[in-house]
Amino acid sequence: MGLEAGCPLRVGYGTAGPKNTIADVPGVKVGHVTIREKDVRTGVTAVLPHGGDLFREKVPAAAAVINGFGKTMGLVQIEEMGTIETPVLMTNTLSIGTAATALIRYMLARDPEIGVSTGTVNPVVCECNDGYLSDIRGLHVTEAHVFEAIEAASDEVAEGCVGAGTGMSCLGFKGGIGSASRILTLDGRTYTVGALTLCNFGQAGRLIAGGKRLGEKLAAARPEQDKGSIIMLLATDLPLSTRQLRRLCRRAGAGLARTGSYYGNESGDIAIAFSTANRIPHSPEKALLPFTVLHDAYIDPALDLAAEAVEEAILSALWHAETTEGRDGHIRRSLREALAALPADET
Amino acid sequence: MGLEAGCPLRVGYGTAGPKNTIADVPGVKVGHVTIREKDVRTGVTAVLPHGGDLFREKVPAAAAVINGFGKTMGLVQIEEMGTIETPVLMTNTLSIGTAATALIRYMLARDPEIGVSTGTVNPVVCECNDGYLSDIRGLHVTEAHVFEAIEAASDEVAEGCVGAGTGMSCLGFKGGIGSASRILTLDGRTYTVGALTLCNFGQAGRLIAGGKRLGEKLAAARPEQDKGSIIMLLATDLPLSTRQLRRLCRRAGAGLARTGSYYGNESGDIAIAFSTANRIPHSPEKALLPFTVLHDAYIDPALDLAAEAVEEAILSALWHAETTEGRDGHIRRSLREALAALPADET
Amino acid sequence: MGLEAGCPLRVGYGTAGPKNTIADVPGVKVGHVTIREKDVRTGVTAVLPHGGDLFREKVPAAAAVINGFGKTMGLVQIEEMGTIETPVLMTNTLSIGTAATALIRYMLARDPEIGVSTGTVNPVVCECNDGYLSDIRGLHVTEAHVFEAIEAASDEVAEGCVGAGTGMSCLGFKGGIGSASRILTLDGRTYTVGALTLCNFGQAGRLIAGGKRLGEKLAAARPEQDKGSIIMLLATDLPLSTRQLRRLCRRAGAGLARTGSYYGNESGDIAIAFSTANRIPHSPEKALLPFTVLHDAYIDPALDLAAEAVEEAILSALWHAETTEGRDGHIRRSLREALAALPADET
Amino acid sequence: MGLEAGCPLRVGYGTAGPKNTIADVPGVKVGHVTIREKDVRTGVTAVLPHGGDLFREKVPAAAAVINGFGKTMGLVQIEEMGTIETPVLMTNTLSIGTAATALIRYMLARDPEIGVSTGTVNPVVCECNDGYLSDIRGLHVTEAHVFEAIEAASDEVAEGCVGAGTGMSCLGFKGGIGSASRILTLDGRTYTVGALTLCNFGQAGRLIAGGKRLGEKLAAARPEQDKGSIIMLLATDLPLSTRQLRRLCRRAGAGLARTGSYYGNESGDIAIAFSTANRIPHSPEKALLPFTVLHDAYIDPALDLAAEAVEEAILSALWHAETTEGRDGHIRRSLREALAALPADET
Repeated sequence: MGLEAGCPLRVGYGTAGPKNTIADVPGVKVGHVTIREKDVRTGVTAVLPHGGDLFREKVPAAAAVINGFGKTMGLVQIEEMGTIETPVLMTNTLSIGTAATALIRYMLARDPEIGVSTGTVNPVVCECNDGYLSDIRGLHVTEAHVFEAIEAASDEVAEGCVGAGTGMSCLGFKGGIGSASRILTLDGRTYTVGALTLCNFGQAGRLIAGGKRLGEKLAAARPEQDKGSIIMLLATDLPLSTRQLRRLCRRAGAGLARTGSYYGNESGDIAIAFSTANRIPHSPEKALLPFTVLHDAYIDPALDLAAEAVEEAILSALWHAETTEGRDGHIRRSLREALAALPADET
Repeated sequence: MGLEAGCPLRVGYGTAGPKNTIADVPGVKVGHVTIREKDVRTGVTAVLPHGGDLFREKVPAAAAVINGFGKTMGLVQIEEMGTIETPVLMTNTLSIGTAATALIRYMLARDPEIGVSTGTVNPVVCECNDGYLSDIRGLHVTEAHVFEAIEAASDEVAEGCVGAGTGMSCLGFKGGIGSASRILTLDGRTYTVGALTLCNFGQAGRLIAGGKRLGEKLAAARPEQDKGSIIMLLATDLPLSTRQLRRLCRRAGAGLARTGSYYGNESGDIAIAFSTANRIPHSPEKALLPFTVLHDAYIDPALDLAAEAVEEAILSALWHAETTEGRDGHIRRSLREALAALPADET
Repeated sequence: MGLEAGCPLRVGYGTAGPKNTIADVPGVKVGHVTIREKDVRTGVTAVLPHGGDLFREKVPAAAAVINGFGKTMGLVQIEEMGTIETPVLMTNTLSIGTAATALIRYMLARDPEIGVSTGTVNPVVCECNDGYLSDIRGLHVTEAHVFEAIEAASDEVAEGCVGAGTGMSCLGFKGGIGSASRILTLDGRTYTVGALTLCNFGQAGRLIAGGKRLGEKLAAARPEQDKGSIIMLLATDLPLSTRQLRRLCRRAGAGLARTGSYYGNESGDIAIAFSTANRIPHSPEKALLPFTVLHDAYIDPALDLAAEAVEEAILSALWHAETTEGRDGHIRRSLREALAALPADET
Repeated sequence: MGLEAGCPLRVGYGTAGPKNTIADVPGVKVGHVTIREKDVRTGVTAVLPHGGDLFREKVPAAAAVINGFGKTMGLVQIEEMGTIETPVLMTNTLSIGTAATALIRYMLARDPEIGVSTGTVNPVVCECNDGYLSDIRGLHVTEAHVFEAIEAASDEVAEGCVGAGTGMSCLGFKGGIGSASRILTLDGRTYTVGALTLCNFGQAGRLIAGGKRLGEKLAAARPEQDKGSIIMLLATDLPLSTRQLRRLCRRAGAGLARTGSYYGNESGDIAIAFSTANRIPHSPEKALLPFTVLHDAYIDPALDLAAEAVEEAILSALWHAETTEGRDGHIRRSLREALAALPADET
């Protein structure tokens, strides 16, 4: 649902798409499973690049590791082959194994040839550590949760304390899932760059929103290190090559920095981008295939808006997240509540 | 157990350590679980960089992706932080999720602070696709298998059709686990470079051993693509930095090429190296720590012997592997048997 | 000279060193040659990591390419060997060849063994394109200019329209050379992180300074693409490894983003960092050398302040740069003048 | 001219093109300038990807650094933008500055808009250290030599002691320039992969040629370190993306390893590949351009033959190089002469 027009956290110079989420990129779907029970505040988020058979029709993709204190799986093959062939999963750090197994089973169930005649499949699973609010050691995510998140995927993107974002913290506040989109026009056609972020990074007091140093006014009592991580997923219907998608990914780092991060030591700051414009068949009939690709001389708006979409997706996660109490009485406060308590002329 | 002196597949110019395996590096241990039942030919191999608490005393490490059609987990953090903090696991491609979960549980069980006060842990899990001989879709590796492999670790390194190598194929023959070591002397002290490889790569007919094109004489009936993968693990007690360990990793690619590989399209050719000489504490008492590091002006023998150890470890895997029949009547023949059938003057 | 206390462009949370320049790192020296004649507005800047023999006593170093539309020389060897062994030069894009030749001659003159018994030398030359204000096609930098810049090196760092910064443009204003420093304390000792930037990037209207979107108020008449480049040099007396210096370099990208850049398509955004704490001898007497290295658990302040120093160095370049008229009547206005013309309550 | 059919150094399984040089790729031209005077044995080699305006019609390109003890210029931008826009130059290490300046002047002379309306140009200059045979400190290459090499470019490729190869050494013998090509068929059309190598690497006694350890029989009297470097240029008319060209580059490392290299510490082992199939206009009329690209499922033959072409190009350099006496009475013997002196049954 993104940040609505008029929301004080809207940033940048671009124009948002109709939903102001990653689902403004046609075909992209997002599903969540939220797990809240006793000491558990966690979940799973699944992003589907398109609604078809992802293994048989892969999407061009790339990644960039802004800071690599993270356990995201699948990047080696994305880098080499330049494709994504599964839904992209997000969950808590210690559940990546379960998520990977579930994703493998999901793919096997849909395609009897995988591992028999076609080689294997590359599961993409991203993570952040929600251990401050959740009993992460309990490994509470099950394979059933993963299937449920994938099945729940739609173009209505819930944000805040949902899915993988349920137990995350960000810049001293409650973090979670955020999304945003920006549109641009090329050769007379409109394209969209969308971002979805799993936000669990940053130091209390450092929040910047639209260039304003809000964090200073809202700082939590005790200073903390810049810990945690962020997953930044970018989608676009622009016809970009793997090389160009990697360029987009690096701009995610610019958007992240503008919200107050310095890419802390213990942060797994990972960007992944895919394009829905050209699909890569698993078993092409011919060796040579026709593609349409953007010339780099026209890429600047996409770079600019990728940074902006990530910046706003982070702020949207903070905006949508509600105050949450988790394990051992740990509490993360909602930014929106904190802002509401400020005098009007300071926001 | 490595290749014994006099074995026709011994290669290179260096001197092997006493066992001619990776366990010649003091403290390194290897454990296997072999799974053979009905259509299943698979397993798990665990390599322990030292016998202590790996999370509390990490080892410097690095990796290199020679070709990235692979699903190895843990490389993002190895690259950023330059350490390994768990045993290194190897198994079949579709079991990496299970292996990761088991490895996480193993680490959690040994350290109650992980995920509570210390952040999480980075599981390192490597894989090759044994689907030609094994029912890989069945996901037959269990968490218990992983615990068993770790517990079985010793300095006696079994090779061939054991552990993760049980169902692997290589250069048209039966592949599997191989190991080798080389020693060098610096400033009057002896050091060891050891290699352990999980061999599942290559095209029938392309085997080169010690510069000789053996594959041509032994070629299987039907030509095949260079498929599959190889994991190349290097260990040393030389005090190397992360940057220098990455240099070693790239030499694994040289050793691999000398056995007949051209790093095929669908091959996940991954090298990981660690040094046991300097340990990195998880929670240091001081910010600044003293280290001893090799000067690059003296690194050439280590580079040379890393390539040679990988080359011989691959040949040792082939030498030790026995003819294996697997799922659907698929058979991979032993290189040793094929060599025995050759006229003596042709080997 | 950096930004003085009280300057409205001072940013961040850290404490500046006494000069607030890169020369607060003990031993680091900077020299400029400024070339202003007819249609020429260019120059050379030299940064010396220490005052001794750089070839015989190299400094640990690393680099990061934030966006690679640039021609900087020397990064291949910095990445592999982790050292810098010459002064670091900056000049205009088309003069890198001349600068490289001059730097080679400078090194040869000081060491008769280079190219005879020691191998060659790796010149590090960085560049931005000052073609808007200067006749860059004229290749007006001579080898004599380079020698002069190196010889002029001192710990008094001139900023703004000097040296390589003479003809540069930044965020719609006159750019140039800027510098800043930050101090931190570890194990009871004070260390410094210093930055020097050659600023030639950014789109008019996008300037952000310390949480204020100044650019919008000051936007030049016609919108422009984010073009040009930035060289971001980081120096520290913290004992950092190559891997850690690369981590610092990536934080330069965070500082850059905070000033309004999205790393434009045609921008060569290059960061290079070196540490003066450990020197690497060219010809060590022993293979194994003792080093002191920072543990990553204590690196966060250095990462934070590296970003902050780069952010402020950029603003310092803008603050010190004067309105400049160059070739064909092209003019770049001084930010300081533009700010002075604003009503007081808007800055 | 490559190795002729029947030459004992021909290697591999593929079919050579008609010339067995890089010029079998239609449009590719090579020019040399050889400088032999007193203590000077050096030169310049220029490779032109096509005969048109390279700045206005760039070629897709990529690079891989196998070992980075080298000073090659231009890789940063090749990596980012995926194109080459100048002839590729090779020369001795200390002449790269001169070569860069000359290449810049050459490009400026052909295009009055460079540096005025179009941004600058990215010169690609590669190097090896010929200091054993040549007075490299004398910087004897002039800009005129560079212009001459470019002007001399034709599809007749001289090999051995010519151009940049004049003073090079390789595996204990006289090195130099070598070339080879291989053809493959896809969708009914024939394509070519060509290699040109500047060979200056390796340790005496280590030469392997087509499965024979020739080096051991021919070892020079005194053992030497694996020093020096190699530049491996790959060209193809296959329509490959930047990502795929990088994959080809890494196979150059496989070919190199098979000739006896372990990528020595002080070796700058650099591979650069370009495709002539799709040209990238500098100023496209539209944002979106149509391309034909090879599907990776069909790339294996190109990977295999890229390794093989590099392997044979190295052997061809050795085969064509003549015994050379250089500075201070230093001599490098011809491999061909050494082979001729062997009993016939040992080659």
